[in-house]
Amino acid sequence: LNSSSPVFLNGVTCRGKVLTLDSMNPNVRRVEYAVRGPIVQRAVQIEKELREGVKKPFTEVIKANIGDAHAMGQKPITFFRQVLALCSYPDLLEDNKFPEDAKKRARRILDACGGHSIGAYSASQGIECIRQDVARYIEKRDGGIPSNPDNIYLSTGASDAIVTMLKLLVCGEGRDRTGVMISIPQYPLYSAALADLGAVQINYYLDEDKCWGLDVTELRRALNAAKQHCKPRVLCIINPGNPTGQVQSRECIEDVIRFAKEENLFLMADEVYQDNVYAKGCKFHSFKKVLFEMGPEYSSSLEMASFHSTSKCYMGECGFRGGYMEVLNMDPEVKAQLTKLVSVRLCPPVSGQAMLDLVVNPPLPDEPSYASYLKERTAVLAALAEKSHLTEEMFNTVPGITCNPVQGAMYTFPRITLPQKAIAKAQEEGQAPDMLYCMKLLEEEGICLVPGSGFGQKEGTFHFRMTILPPTEKLKVVLQKIRDFHLRFTQEFS
Amino acid sequence: LNSSSPVFLNGVTCRGKVLTLDSMNPNVRRVEYAVRGPIVQRAVQIEKELREGVKKPFTEVIKANIGDAHAMGQKPITFFRQVLALCSYPDLLEDNKFPEDAKKRARRILDACGGHSIGAYSASQGIECIRQDVARYIEKRDGGIPSNPDNIYLSTGASDAIVTMLKLLVCGEGRDRTGVMISIPQYPLYSAALADLGAVQINYYLDEDKCWGLDVTELRRALNAAKQHCKPRVLCIINPGNPTGQVQSRECIEDVIRFAKEENLFLMADEVYQDNVYAKGCKFHSFKKVLFEMGPEYSSSLEMASFHSTSKCYMGECGFRGGYMEVLNMDPEVKAQLTKLVSVRLCPPVSGQAMLDLVVNPPLPDEPSYASYLKERTAVLAALAEKSHLTEEMFNTVPGITCNPVQGAMYTFPRITLPQKAIAKAQEEGQAPDMLYCMKLLEEEGICLVPGSGFGQKEGTFHFRMTILPPTEKLKVVLQKIRDFHLRFTQEFS
Ligand SMILES: Cc1ncc(COP(=O)(O)O)c(C=O)c1O
Ligand SMILES: Cc1ncc(COP(=O)(O)O)c(C=O)c1O
Repeated sequence: LNSSSPVFLNGVTCRGKVLTLDSMNPNVRRVEYAVRGPIVQRAVQIEKELREGVKKPFTEVIKANIGDAHAMGQKPITFFRQVLALCSYPDLLEDNKFPEDAKKRARRILDACGGHSIGAYSASQGIECIRQDVARYIEKRDGGIPSNPDNIYLSTGASDAIVTMLKLLVCGEGRDRTGVMISIPQYPLYSAALADLGAVQINYYLDEDKCWGLDVTELRRALNAAKQHCKPRVLCIINPGNPTGQVQSRECIEDVIRFAKEENLFLMADEVYQDNVYAKGCKFHSFKKVLFEMGPEYSSSLEMASFHSTSKCYMGECGFRGGYMEVLNMDPEVKAQLTKLVSVRLCPPVSGQAMLDLVVNPPLPDEPSYASYLKERTAVLAALAEKSHLTEEMFNTVPGITCNPVQGAMYTFPRITLPQKAIAKAQEEGQAPDMLYCMKLLEEEGICLVPGSGFGQKEGTFHFRMTILPPTEKLKVVLQKIRDFHLRFTQEFS
Repeated sequence: LNSSSPVFLNGVTCRGKVLTLDSMNPNVRRVEYAVRGPIVQRAVQIEKELREGVKKPFTEVIKANIGDAHAMGQKPITFFRQVLALCSYPDLLEDNKFPEDAKKRARRILDACGGHSIGAYSASQGIECIRQDVARYIEKRDGGIPSNPDNIYLSTGASDAIVTMLKLLVCGEGRDRTGVMISIPQYPLYSAALADLGAVQINYYLDEDKCWGLDVTELRRALNAAKQHCKPRVLCIINPGNPTGQVQSRECIEDVIRFAKEENLFLMADEVYQDNVYAKGCKFHSFKKVLFEMGPEYSSSLEMASFHSTSKCYMGECGFRGGYMEVLNMDPEVKAQLTKLVSVRLCPPVSGQAMLDLVVNPPLPDEPSYASYLKERTAVLAALAEKSHLTEEMFNTVPGITCNPVQGAMYTFPRITLPQKAIAKAQEEGQAPDMLYCMKLLEEEGICLVPGSGFGQKEGTFHFRMTILPPTEKLKVVLQKIRDFHLRFTQEFS
C-alpha cells in the first residue's frame, strides 16, 4: 500500500499510513541489534508469564545476555553513590554522615555546574573540570604521556561517542563510500551504527584457534578485498574484546598501529573494559600508550579516538550513561565540527558526567573513603576473575562445547557443535541454528543468552555469548543447566 | 590536499589527514546550531578572560542565550531532589530526615530497576512503571483521554526523541526525498537534525504581526511550493513556541490537525513548554486532546508523536536529560522498528527517567511533601509570568525594538530595527547584521543573546532571542543595558 495513494475501504476513501515499513528510513530497517533482539523480548514475555502464575520448568529468568553488572546483583561503589546523592540534594552537605572526601568531590562538581546544580545543561563537550580529571587519569594510566582536556569529549555512554565518531567519518557514494573495518565477532553497536549511516562494513575475522587473536594478515586480506567496492577509512578495535574476551598483546597493538598508519586509516579503540583483565600474563595496554611509545613518527600523525565508559570495569554503572572519548591528531577544523555536532543534543547527562568524574578521580590513599573504595573494587574484580576461570573450565568439560580462556571483559563466547538435524530444522524454519538453540534454552531453562549469529561468526560455526556476571553460586547453577541442556539438545537431535 | 594522495614534505613521504573538512560527512558540515554557536563560544572566552583579570566594562557574562533555568539561579523542586538522592544512595532510605512520600517514590523506582539499582541498564523504551506513570499523567492532563504505556518512549531529553522520530521518517532520493515542515523562526534542533539526515527542510513562516500566529494558508503555500522538489511527509509544531513565545489557540490546533490529515502528514508536536503559559486568555491545549475531541475520524488515523522533557516548565532539570514521546496511530511494524532503533543506544539515563517519573507523578494533596512542592512550583511559574510581562513592557518602550507578548515558553524574540550603515558593515564583513549586533552587545555589556538569524526570520527583518530566566532584579538590569546599548548602537551607525 503506497502511502500517498488513496484506496477504497467499505466505500470510504482511506489512505495508507504515512509511515510504513516500506516508506520508513531503509537504513534503520537494516539495523540489527542482537543484544536486545527477539530472544530478549521473549525473555521479558516469559518473565511476565511467570508473574502471572504460568507454570514453567523454572522460577526465574536469568538474563546473561547483557553486560549489566548491577542487574546481576553487583553492588555499586559506596563512595560513588554518596557523591551522587550529595550532588543530587546538596542539603546533605550539612549532614555529618557523609565522609569529607565525598563532600569535597561533590562540592567540586557542583562548583563546576551552572547555578551549582546538576540540573543545569553543561558545556556540550562536557564539564571542563571533569575533562581535566579525565586527562589526568589518562596520563596516570599511560605512565605520564600527556593528555589534553581539549581532546576529551564526554558522552552519553560510550555508545554515543562511538556513533558520533562514526557519523563524522562517513561520506562518499557508491565505490567511494566510507568502509569501516570491524572484527567478527563484534559488538553489534558497530554493525548497527554502520547500517544506520549507510557505511560499508568490512569484516575482519578474529582467530578462534589462537584465543581470538587478531592477525595483521587477516586485516590486510579484508582491507584489500574491500578496496574493490568501497573506500576503507576506519579501523575499529575492541580491547579487551566483546564478545570474545581476548586481551591484545603489546605486539599485536603495535602491529595494528603500524597497519593503520601504512593504510592511512582512522583508528577507533574501544577500551571500555580496560580494568577487566583476568588471565595470567595478560595486561591492558592502551592504544594511546603504545602509539606514543612507538615514537613521534606514529604519535604525531596517526588519527585516533579511544573510548571509555562508566558501564563496565569494577563499577558497572550502566544506567548513568557516562563515558568519554579522547581524540588524537584530529584536524582542528574537524574538531570544531565535532564540537558543533555534539552541541545539537545540548549535553550528556550531568549525573553521568559526575559518575565518570569519580571513576577517573576515585579516593586517594590518604582520603577517608580510600579503604572502602579499594576493598569494594578489589572484591568485584577478584570475583570476576574467579568466574572467568570457572566458566572456561566448566564449559570445556562439556562434549560439544569448546571455550577459549576469558582473558578479559565480561563474556565467554564458546563454540557449540550442533547436530546436523538441529541445523536442518533451523534452516527449515528460516532461523539461525544457534538462535534455535538459545531460544530452546530460554524456554526450557529460563536462561537468556545471545546467539553467536548476533555478533557474526565464521560460516558454519556456532556460538553463544554469556556474561560471567551472575553471582558465583548462581553462575555455577547456570553453567550446570547449560551443560545439561546441551547434552539433552545433542541427544534430541541425534 | 586529498587524504589518500601522498605528498612530499621535507623529502619525507607524508599523507594528509584521513579526516578533513573535505573528507568528513558533508551532512554534518551543513549542520548549524546557533544556541551554542560562535557567540556562545566567545562568551565562554570572555568569562575566561575575566577570571584571568582582563579588564572589561562589566564583571560577569550573563548568558541569556539558552533556556537553562538552574544556571540562571532557579532552585530545583526539593521533593524531586530528595527522591533522586534516595535513588542514588539507598542507604538514605533509613534516614528519618526524608519525608515518607519521597521514600515511597524512591522505593517504587528502585523496585523497577534491575538489581534495585539506577546503575543498571533499563529497558530501551524506558522503565515500564515510569511509562505507566507517564500514560496516567497524559490521561489526567487531557481530561481522561486514554494513553497506552506501550506508546510511550522515554528518551535522553526531548532532543533525542525528536531526532529519533525524524530519523525514522526520512527516506527517498532526489525529488522523492522526505520533506519536513518546520516553523520559521524555529528551534534550531530541527534544522540541524534535518541537515544531518539529509532531509529537505520546508519553511513555513509564523506571522509576527499576529503575535507569531500560525496560519493554515501559509502552511498550504509552503507545502505546495515544496511539492515541486521533494515529498513532504512531516509537519513539526512547537507549542508553546520557541523562540517566539506564542501559545496556539484551540482553533489553530484544529486547523493544523485538519491540514495534516488532508495532506497525509505525520505530525510532530513539541510540547516541552506545556506548563509555561503566562498570558491572560491563553491556555495550553495538547495536540492529542484536540485530536481526540475532533472525533474518531481524526483520532483513529492521524499519525502523531508528541514530546515532553524534564528540562523546561517549572522544574528546569535540563542536566538530567529526561524526556518522553507518545506515538499515536503508528503502524505496529514501524513501532517494532522504532523499539529496535532505540535499543542500539541501550537506554536513556536512568536518573533522567527517575526525574521524569517525579514530574509526571508529583506529590498528591494528601502527601507530606505536597505543600512544599506546590509552593515551589507556583513561585517559579509566578516569577516567570511576572518576567514575561516585564520584558514585553520594557522592550516596547525602546524606539527601534518591538516585541510581541511572551504568551508562553521562556523567551522573547523582539524585532530590532538596524541602521542601514550597520547592515552594510555586517555585509562587508560577511556577517549577519543581527550577529554583528549581538556580538557587540556581548563585548560591550557582557550579555549573551542569540541573533535571530540563528532561528530563521523573514528576509530583511532582524531579531534576537533572550530568555526571561534571569532573576527579576537581574533581568531588569539586563533589559536596561540592552536598552542603553540599542540606543547607542543606533546612534553609532546613524
Ligand atoms: C565493547 C563495548 N563498547 C561499548 C559499549 C557501550 O557501553 P555504554 O554505552 O553503556 O557505555 C559496550 C557495552 O556493552 C561494549 O561492550
Ligand atoms: C522547543 C524545544 N524542543 C526541544 C528542546 C530540547 O530540550 P531537551 O533535550 O533538554 O529536553 C528544547 C530545548 O530548549 C526546546 O526549546
